[in-house]
Amino acid sequence: MNTRIISYVISNLFKLMMFLLLFPLAVSVYYQEGLKLSMAYIIPIIILGISSYFLSNKAPENQSFFSKEGLVIVALSWLLISFFGALPFVISGDIPNMIDAFFESVSGFTTTGATILPEVESLNKSIIFWRSFTHLVGGMGVLVLVLAILPKGNNQALHIMRAEVPGPTVGKLVAKMSYNSRILYIIYIVMTIIMIILLLAGGMSFYDACIHAFGTAGTGGFSSKNTSIGYYNSAYIDYVISVGMLVFGLNFNLFYLLLLGNIKQIFKSEEAKYYLLIIFGITALICVNIYPTYTSISRLIRDVFFTVTSVITTTGYSTVDFNTWPTFSKTLILFLMFSGGCAGSTAGGFKVSRVVILAKKVVREFKKIGHPNKVVNINFEGKTLDKEMLDGIDSYFILYSFTTLILLLITSLESDTFLTAVGSVFGTFNNIGPGLDATGPTSNFSIFSPFLKFILSLGMLLGRLEIIPLLILVSPRIYRKRD
Amino acid sequence: MNTRIISYVISNLFKLMMFLLLFPLAVSVYYQEGLKLSMAYIIPIIILGISSYFLSNKAPENQSFFSKEGLVIVALSWLLISFFGALPFVISGDIPNMIDAFFESVSGFTTTGATILPEVESLNKSIIFWRSFTHLVGGMGVLVLVLAILPKGNNQALHIMRAEVPGPTVGKLVAKMSYNSRILYIIYIVMTIIMIILLLAGGMSFYDACIHAFGTAGTGGFSSKNTSIGYYNSAYIDYVISVGMLVFGLNFNLFYLLLLGNIKQIFKSEEAKYYLLIIFGITALICVNIYPTYTSISRLIRDVFFTVTSVITTTGYSTVDFNTWPTFSKTLILFLMFSGGCAGSTAGGFKVSRVVILAKKVVREFKKIGHPNKVVNINFEGKTLDKEMLDGIDSYFILYSFTTLILLLITSLESDTFLTAVGSVFGTFNNIGPGLDATGPTSNFSIFSPFLKFILSLGMLLGRLEIIPLLILVSPRIYRKRD
Repeated sequence: MNTRIISYVISNLFKLMMFLLLFPLAVSVYYQEGLKLSMAYIIPIIILGISSYFLSNKAPENQSFFSKEGLVIVALSWLLISFFGALPFVISGDIPNMIDAFFESVSGFTTTGATILPEVESLNKSIIFWRSFTHLVGGMGVLVLVLAILPKGNNQALHIMRAEVPGPTVGKLVAKMSYNSRILYIIYIVMTIIMIILLLAGGMSFYDACIHAFGTAGTGGFSSKNTSIGYYNSAYIDYVISVGMLVFGLNFNLFYLLLLGNIKQIFKSEEAKYYLLIIFGITALICVNIYPTYTSISRLIRDVFFTVTSVITTTGYSTVDFNTWPTFSKTLILFLMFSGGCAGSTAGGFKVSRVVILAKKVVREFKKIGHPNKVVNINFEGKTLDKEMLDGIDSYFILYSFTTLILLLITSLESDTFLTAVGSVFGTFNNIGPGLDATGPTSNFSIFSPFLKFILSLGMLLGRLEIIPLLILVSPRIYRKRD
Repeated sequence: MNTRIISYVISNLFKLMMFLLLFPLAVSVYYQEGLKLSMAYIIPIIILGISSYFLSNKAPENQSFFSKEGLVIVALSWLLISFFGALPFVISGDIPNMIDAFFESVSGFTTTGATILPEVESLNKSIIFWRSFTHLVGGMGVLVLVLAILPKGNNQALHIMRAEVPGPTVGKLVAKMSYNSRILYIIYIVMTIIMIILLLAGGMSFYDACIHAFGTAGTGGFSSKNTSIGYYNSAYIDYVISVGMLVFGLNFNLFYLLLLGNIKQIFKSEEAKYYLLIIFGITALICVNIYPTYTSISRLIRDVFFTVTSVITTTGYSTVDFNTWPTFSKTLILFLMFSGGCAGSTAGGFKVSRVVILAKKVVREFKKIGHPNKVVNINFEGKTLDKEMLDGIDSYFILYSFTTLILLLITSLESDTFLTAVGSVFGTFNNIGPGLDATGPTSNFSIFSPFLKFILSLGMLLGRLEIIPLLILVSPRIYRKRD
């Protein structure tokens, strides 16, 4: 294994982290939070600086690396940024317990938005800012950002992109895009700025607009308010954030196409079509289901549309408590939690493209009934999927199901109800944030033991990195020289 | 499509049904239940006789048929026997509603054991007998019985066997066994008789011993007592039925090997090994989990072992109410509900062999991390599984998951809690019987609307026939002449 390239990339990641920590430091200075708070950012910056220096002084000559190195880089990077991201919480004293801080940091970077905090408003402003800023950083991927900054264009960056950008890569565009993580990031930042402006127009302060734009862009869901978006009680803000979440749950290649002016191609996107179909279909079903509990139809649509976009994009912002909804609506919510957003977006979950391809496999089984040897092709995004791609999705579904089962068994040890266990696992593993029942939108994860918080932190990382990269660290094979 | 062979087999099925209905008729006469009860069996016998006569007088010359005809025969047969099996309930007046009676009949033949009856003890004795007798008939498969009886050995019977006997056919023995459904049935009947004798020895009346032996042999779970096996409050009976269920959940090929004296081969059975491992492992886990609520260890082990064997074999007999257990134990119960027994047994569910093969695929994914092109074979029952077999299991898992999701969405419309919905779907689709929460062991399915009872009846059939055969009836392709 090429360990020098690994330490080189990680060294650059550390430098990036140092730069990122300057943002909350600036916020802290602006709000005059004092020396202790400044140290919460300065100490990690110093540790990162020293580590970075010792890791690598210059780029290694042999810059080639393969799938294995790519996976190890991704897994190590995410564990390390989660650890360093937790330090400000601990040093500031706002989240003194290291396990709690790690949970919160992982939750931020993986854009989960699950919290162990019973309330956030009493925290320091720069800490709340840092907590939400991790959403923005984690959304598009920290390594994509490192690659965007590294001076030399590295062709092998593809291995990292594959591991860090969620979802199967079906369209032709992804391969082209991989070489250009800079454009990807510029689109992302510009859209986030538009989001900030739209929220400012709705009457939010600049600080709150940033917090909620980060939460929306990264489809994370951390808020600066205890009652989340419900605090504002504004139809305008609800709809801006709903549509915002919906947009950030789309494959980013679509925005690239938009930049290129290729509108026709955008309307051909099959995943986006199904994504919108699921959103509007399930919004309608839930509206019909909970209609009796509402007096105003506009309010009903607003609340349900917000909840559906929030859950499918795995953001986790809330304006209503869906725990009080009937079982049918809760089951639909669980399906949305499972499905997640589009591949190549900042959203988590199983991904709409995979759900659609599996559904097409079911239809194929149906067509093959009584004709077991008939060949029926599966088309997606205008091309016939090959055996390898289909097998990959099957395997991921099986791996995903087994991981869910194992997390569910561990979580059920500390859950009052089965729905709490399912909700907590879905909420973390699918990077949504709130679960159901005892960890629902009006509650938090502080009820669990440190052990379970750590397991669910790993669950969030497994979900964000789509399992495989994280498992490589516990595979003894990678430590062998010749392999 | 060869419709003549279909009507020929169904005609013979009807004759078999006429013969089977003589058993409850005899019980009715023995207990002097009167003319109305006799008519409950005589009327269906007459209808079956007339239908059988008009369907086919003699065997068609062209006795060849293929996979498609096999599936149609299986699907039609199961729908028809469920319908005719429901008639005695309706005519006797014990279950006057046709939908309820159909549910109960499907539940019997599919060896589910789910009931819409709040209590059974007030029913006529012959009706209770018929209800349990359907377990015995459905357990090994009605068509296997027809094939065993048909005069000519038909080589193409394999197509029917494949569709009716649950689980993937991995071992070599199944292919050989297929030609000999008679031996299969003789083993089954002998084992049922041994079960009756063992229950008689425990102090049961001959009538009750028959009822509970049928319920155990078919892994069905209907009882003649309102409180199920809990009524007897006997360690001997609990253990006889526990071990009985465990044995009937094993692949029947093992008993055939036992007959041949091939003990060495039996101990090589991988599926049986994992099956026992799951049973004893989960029994231990639940014992540890619910230990604080028990004062007697022997009672604890007895109750948990009974529940675990009852659920994994999808029998559904109960001695305790596992609804009161903690969430961890309930989650394990749900896993057992999903897993089910061994392939080639009377048990339902996803089947242990499939679970093991999927688990091996997960291990393979793990081994392939960082070496995506490495070839890692999967071995099961001493041979390397080919691509077709593995794909088949993947496809079934996907089909199984989608069916579960659709049933879950429909059921959640009428469920108070999510666990009720999950339990009811698992209870019926996996052919267990009781679900959880509102349809748990101390409750029943009468809470649901006629519509949902019908849907769940189809769910039981889908589970028993492993989805594909039933779907063929709604596929327009099969009605085309040239296809």
